[in-house]
Amino acid sequence: MDKTRLEAFSDGVIAILITIMVLELRTPEAASWEALRPLRPVFLAYVLSFVYLGIYWNNHHHMFKAVDQVNGGILWANSHLLFWLSLVPFATAWMGDSHFAPVPTALYGVVLLSAAMAYTILVWSLLAKGANPRLAHAIGRDLKGKLSLALYVSAIGLAFINVWLADALYVIVALIWLIPDRRIERDL
Amino acid sequence: MDKTRLEAFSDGVIAILITIMVLELRTPEAASWEALRPLRPVFLAYVLSFVYLGIYWNNHHHMFKAVDQVNGGILWANSHLLFWLSLVPFATAWMGDSHFAPVPTALYGVVLLSAAMAYTILVWSLLAKGANPRLAHAIGRDLKGKLSLALYVSAIGLAFINVWLADALYVIVALIWLIPDRRIERDL
Amino acid sequence: MDKTRLEAFSDGVIAILITIMVLELRTPEAASWEALRPLRPVFLAYVLSFVYLGIYWNNHHHMFKAVDQVNGGILWANSHLLFWLSLVPFATAWMGDSHFAPVPTALYGVVLLSAAMAYTILVWSLLAKGANPRLAHAIGRDLKGKLSLALYVSAIGLAFINVWLADALYVIVALIWLIPDRRIERDL
Amino acid sequence: MDKTRLEAFSDGVIAILITIMVLELRTPEAASWEALRPLRPVFLAYVLSFVYLGIYWNNHHHMFKAVDQVNGGILWANSHLLFWLSLVPFATAWMGDSHFAPVPTALYGVVLLSAAMAYTILVWSLLAKGANPRLAHAIGRDLKGKLSLALYVSAIGLAFINVWLADALYVIVALIWLIPDRRIERDL
Repeated sequence: MDKTRLEAFSDGVIAILITIMVLELRTPEAASWEALRPLRPVFLAYVLSFVYLGIYWNNHHHMFKAVDQVNGGILWANSHLLFWLSLVPFATAWMGDSHFAPVPTALYGVVLLSAAMAYTILVWSLLAKGANPRLAHAIGRDLKGKLSLALYVSAIGLAFINVWLADALYVIVALIWLIPDRRIERDL
Repeated sequence: MDKTRLEAFSDGVIAILITIMVLELRTPEAASWEALRPLRPVFLAYVLSFVYLGIYWNNHHHMFKAVDQVNGGILWANSHLLFWLSLVPFATAWMGDSHFAPVPTALYGVVLLSAAMAYTILVWSLLAKGANPRLAHAIGRDLKGKLSLALYVSAIGLAFINVWLADALYVIVALIWLIPDRRIERDL
Repeated sequence: MDKTRLEAFSDGVIAILITIMVLELRTPEAASWEALRPLRPVFLAYVLSFVYLGIYWNNHHHMFKAVDQVNGGILWANSHLLFWLSLVPFATAWMGDSHFAPVPTALYGVVLLSAAMAYTILVWSLLAKGANPRLAHAIGRDLKGKLSLALYVSAIGLAFINVWLADALYVIVALIWLIPDRRIERDL
Repeated sequence: MDKTRLEAFSDGVIAILITIMVLELRTPEAASWEALRPLRPVFLAYVLSFVYLGIYWNNHHHMFKAVDQVNGGILWANSHLLFWLSLVPFATAWMGDSHFAPVPTALYGVVLLSAAMAYTILVWSLLAKGANPRLAHAIGRDLKGKLSLALYVSAIGLAFINVWLADALYVIVALIWLIPDRRIERDL
């Protein structure tokens, strides 16, 4: 099976998720700068999730460059990833609306952690299919992936102690990944 | 006529349907785990429908692999399928909001049954066009399709007797289809 | 310039329009069949507009089969068509919510009439570009197009006399177009 | 890396943005022409933003015609542009809902200015990659780009003095760009 429709479907879902998040930025009642102030946490949460979904799109894009064929298992591993990504707008809205309260901040981390695990499963199922050796080489020991999982788990715990430390970890993971997987780019 | 735009349009519609369902997961008022509890039935209904739409996308994808050309009749059979799928978010939201009450659960089955019949009509119109013999062979006697129709009809009736039995049937049909049509995959 | 992205963009916009209309089908408060009854006009309006957008997608698809190249003018003629189509969900919701009251029914006709005129302009700009002679031949005297415009104008007027006659005309135009342009299919 | 998925993803995001703006046109309570009157500013703001997003799609389309390869930096410059465009529906809704009050009109200009700067950065990153010399030639001194930035800045200031002058400038910039970059079209 060829990968074109899987890529197109994933692009579609991620494009829609990234865009419907903006619907949470509700029009302020008044027409003043002050009326924008309550939107600040919602906006910050939006920016963070925009970057995360951008990262997923970007790395998905890069990874499938090194893939030639997909099978039923890969289709489902990909849908599983899209499922967790589809919960990002909900978690984002709750975190923003609650002004980064502990429980929503922890739930945000749970969703990111689940998406990261789903991505790892997708990588495994691509490698298991005996995919392109370039991909195996490019992924290597996947230090960035493992570090991200550890940071998400830490952030979920920290959310109940100091919510800003948790948010700082989410920002740090985003920064780690902002650079698309140069290993793949280089190896290709 | 070639099939590329039909595939792209179907992918677009299914990607959007799968994504707007998540808008039903409304942000809780409070920032506590308890505030998430009322969302449980909405979330479960979302997961079920996500899997169903994923199955349709998956099998649509597989089936059109075995198709080379489309005509006006096939375009409309495909739009007819998309119409019933477009009602899934509504039926899902009602079933979830009503905490799986009998009538919404039955309506959910009616929508799934209609979509399944529309899919069958699409298969027929592909075969009628004298399509790829591989497709005819792969579909065969379509036992899974016929079984699904029977289970949907049973579930619609059962919804008024024991709603959990009806929901169990919906889950069973989903599990039956979770495995993409290996017959097609094998035959191709 | 090649036509691929124009087709993809149009497919995307029409897929989204067709799908967001379903958001107007709001979840009923109660979990009974009676609670669905007030949704009937909204549902009927949805079905009609689903068919209309399906027709536009279908004929757009057919027409661009006969097109090889696009230029800036064609891009804008296409965007102009998409603009009027983008008002279909609004007009549909108003007509449905108002239970097919005269003014919303007339506005629905105005939107359909404008979209039909935008489609005619798009056809002209394709022909003006000295497009494929097959397209010119297939379009011919465009009787269906001219008849549709006349029927829309009649329906807009009739909406203030007998709203059901106006709606009947909308259904008739849809039926006229349900058959994709066989002339193009045949000529290609 | 090839540019297909970047184009598809951008097309998807812009198609969704252009379409969700229409959700701001809420169904009037009454079924009369007068009930439409309060929607006039929302509608005008919608038309303006539809044209702007159409322009961005159009010029994005044109520019990437002259691009053969993309890299990680270009992916992010493109995502950065999409981020600012994703704020257009919010700014449009606020400007329309507030009947073109000064602060929302200024914010609309800030979003347009940011999107224009993001577009400029995207152009630079394409040129920096040693892109197609045709692109460098076609962009030239980018007078239109520089003029637009100056007009946006003026409009933001003017919004607090005379809001209609600010809106007039937004319309003028749109008219300047309505003609897709003929330089690129000619040079290609």
